[in-house]
Amino acid sequence: MKVAIMGYGVVGSGVAEVIGKNAEVIAKKTGILPELSHILDIRDFPGDPFASFLTKEFADILEDDETGIVVETMGGLEPAFTFVSACLERGKHVVTSNKELVAKKGDVLLALAEKHNVNFLFEASVGGGIPIIRPLIRCLAGNRIQEIAGILNGTTNFILTKMIMEDMDFADALALAQKKGYAEKDPTADVAGIDACRKICILASLAFGTHIYPDGVPTKGITDVTLDDVKAAAAAGYVIKLIASAKQLENGRLALRVSPTLVKKESMLAGVNGVFNACLVRGDAVGDVLLYGQGAGKLATASAVVGDVIDCAAHDSARIRFGWSKAEDGVLEAPGAVPTVLFARLKNADKAAVAAALPGASCLDGENGETLVITAQAPAGALEEALAEFHPVTVLPVAAY
Amino acid sequence: MKVAIMGYGVVGSGVAEVIGKNAEVIAKKTGILPELSHILDIRDFPGDPFASFLTKEFADILEDDETGIVVETMGGLEPAFTFVSACLERGKHVVTSNKELVAKKGDVLLALAEKHNVNFLFEASVGGGIPIIRPLIRCLAGNRIQEIAGILNGTTNFILTKMIMEDMDFADALALAQKKGYAEKDPTADVAGIDACRKICILASLAFGTHIYPDGVPTKGITDVTLDDVKAAAAAGYVIKLIASAKQLENGRLALRVSPTLVKKESMLAGVNGVFNACLVRGDAVGDVLLYGQGAGKLATASAVVGDVIDCAAHDSARIRFGWSKAEDGVLEAPGAVPTVLFARLKNADKAAVAAALPGASCLDGENGETLVITAQAPAGALEEALAEFHPVTVLPVAAY
Repeated sequence: MKVAIMGYGVVGSGVAEVIGKNAEVIAKKTGILPELSHILDIRDFPGDPFASFLTKEFADILEDDETGIVVETMGGLEPAFTFVSACLERGKHVVTSNKELVAKKGDVLLALAEKHNVNFLFEASVGGGIPIIRPLIRCLAGNRIQEIAGILNGTTNFILTKMIMEDMDFADALALAQKKGYAEKDPTADVAGIDACRKICILASLAFGTHIYPDGVPTKGITDVTLDDVKAAAAAGYVIKLIASAKQLENGRLALRVSPTLVKKESMLAGVNGVFNACLVRGDAVGDVLLYGQGAGKLATASAVVGDVIDCAAHDSARIRFGWSKAEDGVLEAPGAVPTVLFARLKNADKAAVAAALPGASCLDGENGETLVITAQAPAGALEEALAEFHPVTVLPVAAY
Repeated sequence: MKVAIMGYGVVGSGVAEVIGKNAEVIAKKTGILPELSHILDIRDFPGDPFASFLTKEFADILEDDETGIVVETMGGLEPAFTFVSACLERGKHVVTSNKELVAKKGDVLLALAEKHNVNFLFEASVGGGIPIIRPLIRCLAGNRIQEIAGILNGTTNFILTKMIMEDMDFADALALAQKKGYAEKDPTADVAGIDACRKICILASLAFGTHIYPDGVPTKGITDVTLDDVKAAAAAGYVIKLIASAKQLENGRLALRVSPTLVKKESMLAGVNGVFNACLVRGDAVGDVLLYGQGAGKLATASAVVGDVIDCAAHDSARIRFGWSKAEDGVLEAPGAVPTVLFARLKNADKAAVAAALPGASCLDGENGETLVITAQAPAGALEEALAEFHPVTVLPVAAY
């Protein structure tokens, strides 16, 4: 079965490269020899080793009956959605690395794939090359998933690591990330948490079986995190990581959140540094599982795409089920009602007043006369209200892992 | 399709429990409702909630045409091998958690499964509930695997963690592990590295496509690791972990080893503490991936078994290929020829003589007048010979991850 690639950018060219150089190893291990048919891109790539596959016409892929698997690595919602839909309707398997497409249209595209008895796979859309989606839906299929917490954006983790380990401030760390090619010129999607939010929505939709749209998820990026926050967290025994989390509460509702979060120094997530990503999955049978690796990059992401391509070829007649249904109203808990532990930096606080307003909170002396508070667990709204009286410099959630 | 369980011990009863309590969640997510048919055990379990399924006759399972999937959680080579073979020959899928069976008979049983067009799956045989085997053969199928390094035995990792973090000596830590139920009365299979060796053989057979027998792998356990070794390693910036590793060398041959190994303090593997396991996989496209979680325990291991059961049901007609062929001569490099970095504790050593005998080695002052040596990379045999002159107290390999 032949493979076409739509979008010959970083990931698309990585897919061509991995298929090109590892075809023999893949064939030996899996019995499948992936073979390229077309590469779609509106740009020209003179002298490219795969130039003979290039086309500017989507119809060359759509109308080619030998092309049974289409890789979408264009990114963005359109024309990716239109092209992917057309391919599925023609009975072609589709593999994508496009998290925006999956987060916004996953339920629609999976239903379309089901209708036409083909696979729509998207391992590369979360965590780059790290095996996350297949372990979650296959290996852990026997579990009731209780919680997922991930460092799902390499750019922000690089910036926070520089702040934590080298006392670099946010602006300098961002500039360095841009210089190294880890951050875009316009870094908003990364630093504002939008990218991490799309990814946790994909994982939560898979884990809990209901499409969850990014719009409904409280999302806070790292732009306001200061070196003083990082140092205060360290004094209390924590590091600050941008954590995207999804949890099923006791009442059955779901709580999703993207926020800079305090993570215990000795936890596995605290040890995830630089551009690396990691995802913690807590299941009722398996306990805690952590999946770690490069969350982005040409060949790492291509590795996940090619794994999916092989799966499509191996299961040409057997559909892989995701159990991902349409969105339902009332699935998400109101953010203020979610049981939460908060950390706050207070200036000139009266500790007795803090103890009275926040029963069970513990207080530490920070630098420059600050009081560092870690609250007991209570609904987030009530905690925020109680803390507001003390005009906190910073308020951040504290993770339980 | 109905599921039978052979062996109603810790893991087998966990499988019954997970299927019992999570059937509804599993059905919602996967479309498959696993249903028990029989449980085989020679013992009696009066009052057990699954007592109505118990039988002492293997024929009740073998002859039952409704039982399409058989779970083997008996452990040991026989009668597991005979029973599993008979089930595969009858066209039943088999799922096992039995690492001894897989390490010694994996190639034979996979060939038998292929002949009868059924699946033989064994995710639970390595790393308990941690998704390792499926990520390795599916998600990373596009990679040329370069190296695998794992903390694959929870008992020894618990003991080493107690030695590292609480200055407990080996005998006390072992006694504590036995008290907590983490170690058997006869702990040999764990502390001598036999269990870890079986597991790395399974992973290497999968990654490199050739059956590798445990007999051929240099295996050293942790019984000789002393608190002085742990402290000397710490002084040099390392922790000692029992690492089971498999690597493809530049000449194409494979190097496998189980040994207490120095791992850099800041590496992810160094952060794997207590009974947890982790497996690092290095692929040419994906880079380093780490899979972490509980490597043993009733429900964690059952989680992996149930994942495999669901996969068998979902792929009743499509076989999952492992690309695991028969053993070949000459696949393993001679241990003495494997490029290695060694750590040694020397007493009263002449540093100039050390530098002359071991070009590129670095020396540190240890406690009590010891010299701590970290060699440059060279064939292990040559390094050991050069070190022997100095009558080292301890010689251990140093990991590159």
